[in-house]
Amino acid sequence: MVTGVEAPLAVTRVGVVGLGLIGGSVARTLVAAGVDVVATDPDGATRAQAWDAGVRTVGSAAEVLVERPDVLVLAPPLAALPAVLAELAAELPRLVADGGPLPVLTDVGSVKAPVRAAARVAGLEDRYVGAHPMAGTEESGFAASRDDLLPGCTWAVTVAPTTAAGDLLRVLALIAGPLRGVARVVEDATHDAAVALVSHVPHVLATELLNLTTAAPARALALGLAAGSFRDGTRVARTDPRRTQAMVAGNADAVVGALRDATRHLDALADALEGGDDAAVTAFFDAADPVRAALAEAAAGDASPRTETVALGEPGWRERLVSLGAAGAVVARTGRDAITLAVPPPSPK
Amino acid sequence: MVTGVEAPLAVTRVGVVGLGLIGGSVARTLVAAGVDVVATDPDGATRAQAWDAGVRTVGSAAEVLVERPDVLVLAPPLAALPAVLAELAAELPRLVADGGPLPVLTDVGSVKAPVRAAARVAGLEDRYVGAHPMAGTEESGFAASRDDLLPGCTWAVTVAPTTAAGDLLRVLALIAGPLRGVARVVEDATHDAAVALVSHVPHVLATELLNLTTAAPARALALGLAAGSFRDGTRVARTDPRRTQAMVAGNADAVVGALRDATRHLDALADALEGGDDAAVTAFFDAADPVRAALAEAAAGDASPRTETVALGEPGWRERLVSLGAAGAVVARTGRDAITLAVPPPSPK
Repeated sequence: MVTGVEAPLAVTRVGVVGLGLIGGSVARTLVAAGVDVVATDPDGATRAQAWDAGVRTVGSAAEVLVERPDVLVLAPPLAALPAVLAELAAELPRLVADGGPLPVLTDVGSVKAPVRAAARVAGLEDRYVGAHPMAGTEESGFAASRDDLLPGCTWAVTVAPTTAAGDLLRVLALIAGPLRGVARVVEDATHDAAVALVSHVPHVLATELLNLTTAAPARALALGLAAGSFRDGTRVARTDPRRTQAMVAGNADAVVGALRDATRHLDALADALEGGDDAAVTAFFDAADPVRAALAEAAAGDASPRTETVALGEPGWRERLVSLGAAGAVVARTGRDAITLAVPPPSPK
Repeated sequence: MVTGVEAPLAVTRVGVVGLGLIGGSVARTLVAAGVDVVATDPDGATRAQAWDAGVRTVGSAAEVLVERPDVLVLAPPLAALPAVLAELAAELPRLVADGGPLPVLTDVGSVKAPVRAAARVAGLEDRYVGAHPMAGTEESGFAASRDDLLPGCTWAVTVAPTTAAGDLLRVLALIAGPLRGVARVVEDATHDAAVALVSHVPHVLATELLNLTTAAPARALALGLAAGSFRDGTRVARTDPRRTQAMVAGNADAVVGALRDATRHLDALADALEGGDDAAVTAFFDAADPVRAALAEAAAGDASPRTETVALGEPGWRERLVSLGAAGAVVARTGRDAITLAVPPPSPK
């Protein structure tokens, strides 16, 4: 894993809108790193809690914006995002009229295409760079936030044809700098498909394991016999089903595609078990061998990845970045006009 | 959880046939508890390893039998079981002719109906009591066996109309005594359906999560973004797929039934997500609420279960035992002619 990332662009002031688990952890981590943070949350009690924890709070998103942070991190619930974006869009012309640099907008949401669409509706897409830290989601609220949740965590950073190189560099400087994360630059759709597979569908299947057990005639016995595979397989479904549902519904297209694949594979396995077709049963259990090999390799440590530098002035830089990102590359260094990536060896077929 | 179990029936000599992870752990635990163990394994190197670990070994299952253990624990792979049973059945008439008590047969297999069927074929069903410890299955072989794997673990103990009360009591005395386990008495079919839900189907869904990721275009990115839900949800599928396959194929009927339910539920969820049917999506995520409540209650500690005693001389004792077992009861005490169970309060609807 790549850690010590050079990032010559300084991020000295950061705005945070929404002080839940992730927004609160962003604010705490930055305050601990000595960054000037200005934050808000619609809930007064949450603002008071944050203030007591050393986070400077103000009364609204517009007030955060007028402090001209280098980066403004949007961390409200997905449903509240359009209203926040509208508030920022209404305030922005005053900052433009006054002159000077404008904040880059980023976020922490677990799906990226809907957030970019909301930014587009508000007329703010050209200032927006998507971001999603792969961090715990089982607790919630500022009270659960910590300054050690995000350091070391992997972030997906998403770009589109409208993304300015300077804005991307500034968000990467924030993530790789005071937030001490590892960044992977990709497109929204690539991100959303990937998290459907490694987060949203696992949550659905964990829920389904609970559902099957709920309907079982000998439910109490089944739970009494539950082994490690059940405990591990259902852990993420035991907490707030509303939060899981919101995550899944927010990425419905990608989740539905994966679920259709899953039901096709599982029905084929059931057919093979019923029909005594051992070769087809074996094929089901062996299909994952390339991923088993890749996971074993990752656990054994990276096999000295090669690095590749993308110059941000050249045509096609975004396409090159996201193509390397989809292949597993992580940001190793950012310069004033280039990004160097660590590119893993090709994984087994 | 009920622990200190009184069991007046002493088990002084135990036979073990098959010294893999579970058979080896049974032997080691009994030796550590001062029980006289006589064991065998078809592999000479394994017998030598066991001997070095303090387990007295002999050359064959027949030689174990002629030592007249109180209980003989069958722990070979499922596929090898019919041959072992045939060997024992061939030797048994000599013991009968010599007079004296005959060993009770039990086993440790993860499915119960096929083991009883094999015992029936060998003419040994009337001496057989099924048993299955819910213990780890990720390692294998005598080298992985330990004397601390089984203590504290839950065992399903299965009975049928042919089961003699004295044989059941002896197996319970072994499990609750020197093996220091917690026993739940049920029927084979109840057990097999329950472990399909809490062990075999979780293994299948974990494998399917890996399969979906294997086929993903941005597989390297997906694995790079993999969060806790993916790591937990796939853990049991990362190890030997042949072992998982054997377990699933050995319980095919129950697994197929659960998989058909799962694909129906998952397709309905996909339909609801596609059609924007929020009520149906909510219903999917809420269906497990009773199990969530039961798990939370179990985590908070048993709400002082009532006890119930089943007198083994009375008509219908087996039916009463397995009905309480299916409702979650565990064996609290065994007497010379009665079993006292701790019965949990009814779980939420």
